[in-house]
Amino acid sequence: MEKEKLVLEIPYGTRDFLFQEAACKRDLETQLAATFRRWGYDEVVTPTIEYLDNLTLGSSHALEPHMIKLFDRTNRTLALRHEMTTPIARLAASRLKDEPLPLKVSYISNVFRYEQTQTGRQCEFYQAGVELMGSTTAAADAEVIALAINCLLEAGLTDFTICLGQVEFVNGIMAQYNLAAATQADLQEALEQRDLVALDALVDGLDLPAGSKAVLHKLPLLNGGMDMLQSAYAMALNEQSRRALDNLSEIYRLLDSYGVAQYVRFDLGIIRDLSYYTGMVFEGYTAGLGYPLCGGGRYDRLLSDFGNACPATGFALGIERLMLALAGSEVCVAPQGYKDVYLAYAPGQAAAAIARAAELRAAGQTVEVALQSQGKAEAAEAQQAKGYAKLVYLA
Amino acid sequence: MEKEKLVLEIPYGTRDFLFQEAACKRDLETQLAATFRRWGYDEVVTPTIEYLDNLTLGSSHALEPHMIKLFDRTNRTLALRHEMTTPIARLAASRLKDEPLPLKVSYISNVFRYEQTQTGRQCEFYQAGVELMGSTTAAADAEVIALAINCLLEAGLTDFTICLGQVEFVNGIMAQYNLAAATQADLQEALEQRDLVALDALVDGLDLPAGSKAVLHKLPLLNGGMDMLQSAYAMALNEQSRRALDNLSEIYRLLDSYGVAQYVRFDLGIIRDLSYYTGMVFEGYTAGLGYPLCGGGRYDRLLSDFGNACPATGFALGIERLMLALAGSEVCVAPQGYKDVYLAYAPGQAAAAIARAAELRAAGQTVEVALQSQGKAEAAEAQQAKGYAKLVYLA
Repeated sequence: MEKEKLVLEIPYGTRDFLFQEAACKRDLETQLAATFRRWGYDEVVTPTIEYLDNLTLGSSHALEPHMIKLFDRTNRTLALRHEMTTPIARLAASRLKDEPLPLKVSYISNVFRYEQTQTGRQCEFYQAGVELMGSTTAAADAEVIALAINCLLEAGLTDFTICLGQVEFVNGIMAQYNLAAATQADLQEALEQRDLVALDALVDGLDLPAGSKAVLHKLPLLNGGMDMLQSAYAMALNEQSRRALDNLSEIYRLLDSYGVAQYVRFDLGIIRDLSYYTGMVFEGYTAGLGYPLCGGGRYDRLLSDFGNACPATGFALGIERLMLALAGSEVCVAPQGYKDVYLAYAPGQAAAAIARAAELRAAGQTVEVALQSQGKAEAAEAQQAKGYAKLVYLA
Repeated sequence: MEKEKLVLEIPYGTRDFLFQEAACKRDLETQLAATFRRWGYDEVVTPTIEYLDNLTLGSSHALEPHMIKLFDRTNRTLALRHEMTTPIARLAASRLKDEPLPLKVSYISNVFRYEQTQTGRQCEFYQAGVELMGSTTAAADAEVIALAINCLLEAGLTDFTICLGQVEFVNGIMAQYNLAAATQADLQEALEQRDLVALDALVDGLDLPAGSKAVLHKLPLLNGGMDMLQSAYAMALNEQSRRALDNLSEIYRLLDSYGVAQYVRFDLGIIRDLSYYTGMVFEGYTAGLGYPLCGGGRYDRLLSDFGNACPATGFALGIERLMLALAGSEVCVAPQGYKDVYLAYAPGQAAAAIARAAELRAAGQTVEVALQSQGKAEAAEAQQAKGYAKLVYLA
């Protein structure tokens, strides 16, 4: 018994997708791949395993404690990829170095991180996303946001919000008060963690005029539409933060051209990972999911860590999270036409059944053929048990 | 320079799929998934990492030296899955235990093995396949072979041969001469390796009548159609080997009903891995590829190692190998409609371009939109460089 118990387990943070769930995942990925392609984003598939030195290079090293490591046969340290942006940065600096810019790349891939698991958070999980490299324009940022929104809409989700921020707004605000680097880092961490209690305590302890403290206290509360954005100019005392607001206005205007501005809401307290992002950042939320469906932003520094100075922007979307959002439960709805015909037959009709199945499949039907002759009652029972919509019986 | 060189490498036996190659892989996998579904095979997705004890359980332990291992946080040994049949056997014994039989399952997945690499053989590679559990019928075996053939045909391959054998034929021949177990094992290994020199030397050294030796010498040469199969009955002196030939006749007759018998040729010397397979075995070959495109067979013992005594049959197909076979080179042909329109615009036309792109994409076209206004000559250059069939320019 001990032995059986052992072997039927799977490792912490991993899962099996079965039948309808796997079918839903397949259909969603097929649809995402088609959307990325229609928008001109070429798919890439990279190795599951990379050199650890590579994955921790530059801005993404903060995730190193979460990486799943192993050794190659010469004892070099490898890791399972923890995200796809770094492998794509590697590609952009090597095999894709001579491609015309801007370079538009997409992926649909599993990634691995040691995490405390909960619904929608696993150690192995699936992401779909894009990277747009070689353009500093707001048009590039707007395109990736519009594409993320289109992905959600085409999957059938309508009840979601894209929260849009700009790390240079927060950086500019910090700069205008001449805060010490360590103080800035503490404030940024509190913002990143959305820890308002810590943020308020930190701000209260600063040696600043009350008006300046009021601005810092307000940072996580700066969310809303264009009106809010306009009012934020009053807080922006330097070029850096004003340019960040201008950038957001321009992106928003373009998103309006895409017809998707109604899904977008500014949230100037969003900074995600400040060591990584350098411009606009965004996160997509839906009711009932306590973590983002998708997220992304501009990261103009990462590629230079690979010797390939090049601005970039992009996003990643969590496949399991989208499945959860679509289903409202752990099991996704069955895709259309999933199980059409159970085809059974009386003795001597095996060849006829095979021929009929071929016709039905050629017409796009899902058909399971019985592997031996059955009585009609037995066939009807098998059809029910296997969840086929219809029984075809050859007598 | 040292640093840059380091980080742009990928581990031994891994590869990147870029652009057209990745698009070809995506299209092939989408098509295979659709075919599996139409035939009533439900897809499953299992974790990339499993407990080593699980993956080496029972009949598949021979591959253990080829597995890529790592440790979890409690120092239990894990491995990257080396094939998908064992994870599916685990599922069949646990979450799928109460599903009605026969159980028809499919997968499209990467798997990992330390191998000496060459074109078409990597340490990480992609497989598509099915497992049909719970039926001992020849109809089950014929269905998986017919499905493998359909997968190849639907992918566009026509120039291939399925070589069909039956391990019980070879086992029966060995049994009829009362060979010692060690001698049988040596002969089987020579057969499995297709090492005719070793086989002949082994047979010559046996203490058997000349007629019996002649039969053993002939084993690897027993390939052909129904005539060859009929003539093999003369060598089959016991029930075991005769039943194996009867089984092959029945499978062949069914494959004729499927309309695919012309792709099938008997090869009674094929035994694949005798510790694993228990009935029919097959391998698919195409001109110019020195290893099988696909392979499979009946394995009635594996599931009982998971406490779930249940007969089973199935196959796996190498995605990269099929891509190679389709292209005759390492890069697959571009899928249809891959790059339709490069959409550029004069100053002030960004919003119009976004709207036009949406219309074209809704009509199924692949459209890249310029991220800033361009002159028409510059736009035409970008269209060419990026490989789009057509330029749409909004002046």
